[in-house]
Amino acid sequence: MKNKPSLPKGTRDFGPLEMGRRNFILDTIKKVFLRYGFQPIETPAMEQLSTLKGKYGDEGDQLLFKILNSGDYLKDIDAATQNSKSLTTLISEKGLRYDLTVPFARYVVMNQHEINFPFRRFQIQPVWRADRPQKGRYREFYQCDADIIGTKSLVCEAEIIQMILEVFSGLSLEAFTIKMNHRSILAGIAEVIEAPDKMGELCITLDKLDKIGQDKVMAELAERGFNDEALTKLEPFFQLETHTWKERLDELKSLFTNSMEGLKGVREVEEILSLARGLDFEGANFDFDPLLARGLTYYTGAIFEVKAKGVSIGSICGGGRYDNLTGVFGLEDVSGVGISFGVDRIYDVMEELEMFQAQARSGTKLLIAHFDKDSFKFAIRLLGRVRKEGIAAEIYPEDAKMKKQLGYADKKQIPYVVIIGPEEIQSGAFTFKNMQSGDQSKMDVSEIIEKLKEETDE
Amino acid sequence: MKNKPSLPKGTRDFGPLEMGRRNFILDTIKKVFLRYGFQPIETPAMEQLSTLKGKYGDEGDQLLFKILNSGDYLKDIDAATQNSKSLTTLISEKGLRYDLTVPFARYVVMNQHEINFPFRRFQIQPVWRADRPQKGRYREFYQCDADIIGTKSLVCEAEIIQMILEVFSGLSLEAFTIKMNHRSILAGIAEVIEAPDKMGELCITLDKLDKIGQDKVMAELAERGFNDEALTKLEPFFQLETHTWKERLDELKSLFTNSMEGLKGVREVEEILSLARGLDFEGANFDFDPLLARGLTYYTGAIFEVKAKGVSIGSICGGGRYDNLTGVFGLEDVSGVGISFGVDRIYDVMEELEMFQAQARSGTKLLIAHFDKDSFKFAIRLLGRVRKEGIAAEIYPEDAKMKKQLGYADKKQIPYVVIIGPEEIQSGAFTFKNMQSGDQSKMDVSEIIEKLKEETDE
Repeated sequence: MKNKPSLPKGTRDFGPLEMGRRNFILDTIKKVFLRYGFQPIETPAMEQLSTLKGKYGDEGDQLLFKILNSGDYLKDIDAATQNSKSLTTLISEKGLRYDLTVPFARYVVMNQHEINFPFRRFQIQPVWRADRPQKGRYREFYQCDADIIGTKSLVCEAEIIQMILEVFSGLSLEAFTIKMNHRSILAGIAEVIEAPDKMGELCITLDKLDKIGQDKVMAELAERGFNDEALTKLEPFFQLETHTWKERLDELKSLFTNSMEGLKGVREVEEILSLARGLDFEGANFDFDPLLARGLTYYTGAIFEVKAKGVSIGSICGGGRYDNLTGVFGLEDVSGVGISFGVDRIYDVMEELEMFQAQARSGTKLLIAHFDKDSFKFAIRLLGRVRKEGIAAEIYPEDAKMKKQLGYADKKQIPYVVIIGPEEIQSGAFTFKNMQSGDQSKMDVSEIIEKLKEETDE
Repeated sequence: MKNKPSLPKGTRDFGPLEMGRRNFILDTIKKVFLRYGFQPIETPAMEQLSTLKGKYGDEGDQLLFKILNSGDYLKDIDAATQNSKSLTTLISEKGLRYDLTVPFARYVVMNQHEINFPFRRFQIQPVWRADRPQKGRYREFYQCDADIIGTKSLVCEAEIIQMILEVFSGLSLEAFTIKMNHRSILAGIAEVIEAPDKMGELCITLDKLDKIGQDKVMAELAERGFNDEALTKLEPFFQLETHTWKERLDELKSLFTNSMEGLKGVREVEEILSLARGLDFEGANFDFDPLLARGLTYYTGAIFEVKAKGVSIGSICGGGRYDNLTGVFGLEDVSGVGISFGVDRIYDVMEELEMFQAQARSGTKLLIAHFDKDSFKFAIRLLGRVRKEGIAAEIYPEDAKMKKQLGYADKKQIPYVVIIGPEEIQSGAFTFKNMQSGDQSKMDVSEIIEKLKEETDE
């Protein structure tokens, strides 16, 4: 019996339509990365579990896809005495990449003597997580990261802001906001409310502000043991929301009179924006939000997050400055700043806003259709000639009714068809059909090539 | 204690240098695929083991990387009564892709009602095999496949030949041979030597001809039970080697007077070459070899294989016509023809022949170096302006000695550096240095941009 094939839960195929759209997004991002001097690297799908484990918290460890050792892996193991957890460590040494950051850190440590610092690398590869699949959450998805490591220069943060602006402008996705904050500002807030040791909990709770609102954030903080005085002192920071982001920076300076750390954060944000202005930043699509607290404790400086307007979906891009990328692998003091574009979410946003059109098209510009055996022979020679001019073209490979041949072109969204028949060969004038408009005219071969070359250059 | 990180056996990182080279190869191939009307698809890294198992023979099944089920996978399993093999089926449902053909077949079956046949797809993705790693053999490597399915038209075979020629010409790899044969010719030979039931064994043995030579092939055939008469009748086929490939086709017609199957093979080869000629085929880099027998029993028509000359490495490209891509998943009669480029081997050949040069370069065209704080500010504005013109550029992000900044550019193979200092800002004439030749001259900003735009357009 033949079994009906299926896909593993939470995974997807990408057909030609999805690939065209996804490549448009990835190519746009790549072009910006390259213009900013970033170089690509790739790491293997599989890493040693010792490389991956303990890097993503307990939950992360559970979500790692683990690969069974090859061969007779049970040999010398008394499976009867093991449970799932203990057996795993005995029969699995490798796991699938969970993100691109840990493999990058491993790469840097292993290649530290060859790398030309400051190192600007980008990496676009799938990652795998054994998460419960749901709408918009997959077990295999692409990450698209760029990092500059080996320098603390704030010009890097400024470049990150500009890159984000250029990527979304390249995608013609104009309705978005880059939110920025700084860890030192969050630390300053924790100082001001006299809970400096509870900054982690403060951040975890503030991270929910968008979803649950101020009242529930306050309630959760109270539950977490922040006292009334602390919550009262937190109030003014919420009130900053009604101000412009430029005003917020000034207000913070007075709120932080007793926090060196907080003031340092404000100064760095101002310095970054001043550098960005040199690079052409004008403040559009930008927001400074002192309550923005990205979950990852990993960040130590500026943090960034991008959200699309008018589409209820999480952040479509995020990143920040970290002080210790590779410490976990024994190489200390590698500071850097990175950004990650959420390609799947950007795809979903663009789909919801019906922004995909041209990308849906086939790469093929011309289908050569034919009436009979002699036309087919002629058509093949024309095909060779057209392709030699760099034009993507196809012949319908079989004898078939004209309707079928045109139907093929229509379905594949091939924009032009040329029809070859005995009369056309005789006269040298061929029917050239625009499949979108339905217009057709008679042209000779060089006119057809001229027309298609114009289209290809566009 | 921090553990020193390592890579799993048989896997590799690709740094910027390798990526530049590899992308050059992949982009060249992709461009040809697109010009021939092929569309990209991608399938997940993980497939159900039920999809993969039984498709690659017993050895293949053992070489599949299997993924441990998530959660408490041992629950309800009495591990004590299991061995490695039986336990695997209980604790692992998914495996990593072993090639691109089986996932493609699964894709076609699952999407048969949406696909626009004849379907031209290409797919460039890594595959994983738990093979013993050795020089040139990895556990993770890329495959790069193109197939046209849903038509038996021989024009597809002709297109495959042309695509191979265009790919290697695009790579400037001129020393190669495309070998072609046809399964019906091999079947004809089996008929002529009166061993039609032993065609499989004949092919397996002939496949070793390149490596072990005619004598050892004859000896092995004798061992496999081919009698003296059969071996005598096989002789004339070996003697064809001294002829040109055009002569071989004619000779075969007389050798096949008693084999309809053999004659059919010859006719199809002639037809394919005649169609290829229409497409611009001139016979260069081509060889018709009636003893070429690719291992895979899967092929039913024309077969192709490409070898590089002057480099002792296996085939760098192979493919052929198959009659039943999807039968194993219950969809019969999907015929097609496909080609697979061995990207890793092509890389190795090009490296051995020292063909990589330009690809080694960084994408960055200009580094902006600076002397002091004011120069840095000026440099940042220049950076924004240069990038706006579409030129890939960087600033050295920190205050650093000029030597260090130039060293960075040199290591990254950035071709040009502009040096910004207080005098230069005053005069508007900046030192513009060609890093390869060492030449430098004074230019103003628009001259610099003009110069770099010319370079970028090249």
